[in-house]
Amino acid sequence: MSTETRSELEVRTDPLETARQRVEPALRATLDRLPEAVRPVALYHYGWRDTEGHEDDAGRGKALRPALTLLSAQAVAPHSNPEEVIAAAVAVDLVHNFSLLHDDVMDGDLTRRHRATAWSVFGVGPAVLAGDALLTLALQTLSSLPQAATALADAVQELILGQIQDLALERRATVTLDECLAMATAKTGALIGVSCALGALAAGTPAEPVRQLTRAGRDLGLAFQLTDDVLGIWGDPGVTGKPAGADLRARKKSLPVVAALTSGTPAGAELAGLYGSATPLSTDQIARAADLVEEAGGRAWALNRAEELLSQFEDSLAEGVFDDSGQLALVSVARRCVRRQS
Amino acid sequence: MSTETRSELEVRTDPLETARQRVEPALRATLDRLPEAVRPVALYHYGWRDTEGHEDDAGRGKALRPALTLLSAQAVAPHSNPEEVIAAAVAVDLVHNFSLLHDDVMDGDLTRRHRATAWSVFGVGPAVLAGDALLTLALQTLSSLPQAATALADAVQELILGQIQDLALERRATVTLDECLAMATAKTGALIGVSCALGALAAGTPAEPVRQLTRAGRDLGLAFQLTDDVLGIWGDPGVTGKPAGADLRARKKSLPVVAALTSGTPAGAELAGLYGSATPLSTDQIARAADLVEEAGGRAWALNRAEELLSQFEDSLAEGVFDDSGQLALVSVARRCVRRQS
Repeated sequence: MSTETRSELEVRTDPLETARQRVEPALRATLDRLPEAVRPVALYHYGWRDTEGHEDDAGRGKALRPALTLLSAQAVAPHSNPEEVIAAAVAVDLVHNFSLLHDDVMDGDLTRRHRATAWSVFGVGPAVLAGDALLTLALQTLSSLPQAATALADAVQELILGQIQDLALERRATVTLDECLAMATAKTGALIGVSCALGALAAGTPAEPVRQLTRAGRDLGLAFQLTDDVLGIWGDPGVTGKPAGADLRARKKSLPVVAALTSGTPAGAELAGLYGSATPLSTDQIARAADLVEEAGGRAWALNRAEELLSQFEDSLAEGVFDDSGQLALVSVARRCVRRQS
Repeated sequence: MSTETRSELEVRTDPLETARQRVEPALRATLDRLPEAVRPVALYHYGWRDTEGHEDDAGRGKALRPALTLLSAQAVAPHSNPEEVIAAAVAVDLVHNFSLLHDDVMDGDLTRRHRATAWSVFGVGPAVLAGDALLTLALQTLSSLPQAATALADAVQELILGQIQDLALERRATVTLDECLAMATAKTGALIGVSCALGALAAGTPAEPVRQLTRAGRDLGLAFQLTDDVLGIWGDPGVTGKPAGADLRARKKSLPVVAALTSGTPAGAELAGLYGSATPLSTDQIARAADLVEEAGGRAWALNRAEELLSQFEDSLAEGVFDDSGQLALVSVARRCVRRQS
């Protein structure tokens, strides 16, 4: 025990890390199927190659979505066919990374996971094409699981809807909280919902658990987005990998901001003034904006709403007939992700 | 007969126009399945909506690929299930238009089919997302035809490979003709090959005609690209919808240009000088470059190679057991497309 390293301990005790390690070999083998010229861009994005194409091990994501697929499969059928479940986990991870590659191009973002974004290294064209290839590969991975492929493709369309709504809302002067919630549910909830559903579908379970897991996953996805938005304002830059107050600097209409803007409070009105001005915000103004979101109740609302959604997630699971230890692992991962500090 | 309009006559006599009219209702119904916020971008790109979202009927493409799917189905099984064949034709058309939407973003092109490109009207984000949605929709359209879906996804990966090779070749100082031909086969041949194959697959024919049609279609695709490249230099701007000599102005390494550059002739060397200079080419220099491509034999090589490929296409069909009138229609459409002036 004393010779065990910290990371070995984590693997034994952390279901997120365990899931990542179970999925990674299949994910790497699947990425090897990409056309040769596309591979360096995709592997750089994944943190497994540097800009020169040499082996690397940098900036990995949390891999929440594939973990949810594995844990959902475990919760519905502890002895299900692992190969098909892992294929489903690979597919949701590929879709997530397709959306990140295209997001970074569309937003012009320069860094992701503490590294230069793929488009800023390889150019817009190769990054767009690498995203296209990952999306196609995701659906190819599910070619022998037609029901799962259909569910994933539907979720991709909803994710695209959420992203295009997001772009449209950013251009509009006023946005309601309902519009913002609907957008976030499509943008983040759909893929996290289907990540859970696919675990059950790939394990060959009947329709009812699939529906329960979809609903639970969509709630979890929205809770996850609320946490993300809170960290986008108050997160520690050293941990999140994003500059402090980046979302406020970009005047992003994230959920806590829209809650504040539509709060009818004096703080909300002052925040609207800062968001409405044409000049770039100074560091002092960004700090002031963060305080105003808090004063107007935007932060408390977001944290409470995330906790409510987490409870709904747990209730949805409790309604179903799931394996105890699988369900416990799902709840543990969900709590950690929603209550995370980075 | 005398009351018949020109376009009615065309529909009766032109297999390309007949095919377009057979596919269009299904294509429109399929596009209606797109998420609401994505639809205006996709329908604008298709020429069926204007920038304001009003009905339009502008700038339609040739719809060669879906026509090849219908005609291939007719050639292998004149009485095949039209519904599945039409779904396959819709799918190849969606993939083609996904690639055009992303191409225009990557190349920064401002016009397509005499109209402003989708990204220049709606922004880069919505155009990228509309492309993503069309790609996903293409594979959704084939959900009940798994073999066809697999073949189409493979062709998409090859198309992506061709596009990324194209971007890489444009950045390099010297390119061989073989590299350029391999790129064009991936970029254009793969999708035209699978457009033919899908007609047979959707009609439920055995493997041999599928292979013959794939090979024939890939040759046709390369021939089509050679014609496209010749028109990109000598095409009439009023007909092609592109400015005169646009490919030369952009110093594009199209097939006739690379044939000239690698010809070992004095004209090829002079052309290399123009392509290698750092300053923008004047109108006179563009005209001179076109003459040099011709002098170096690039134009004659491209036209001859296109004719050879057309013969190979016809030979591949002649080797198979195809319905006579279906085969005749395929050959007629292929000849017209390869020998077209716009």
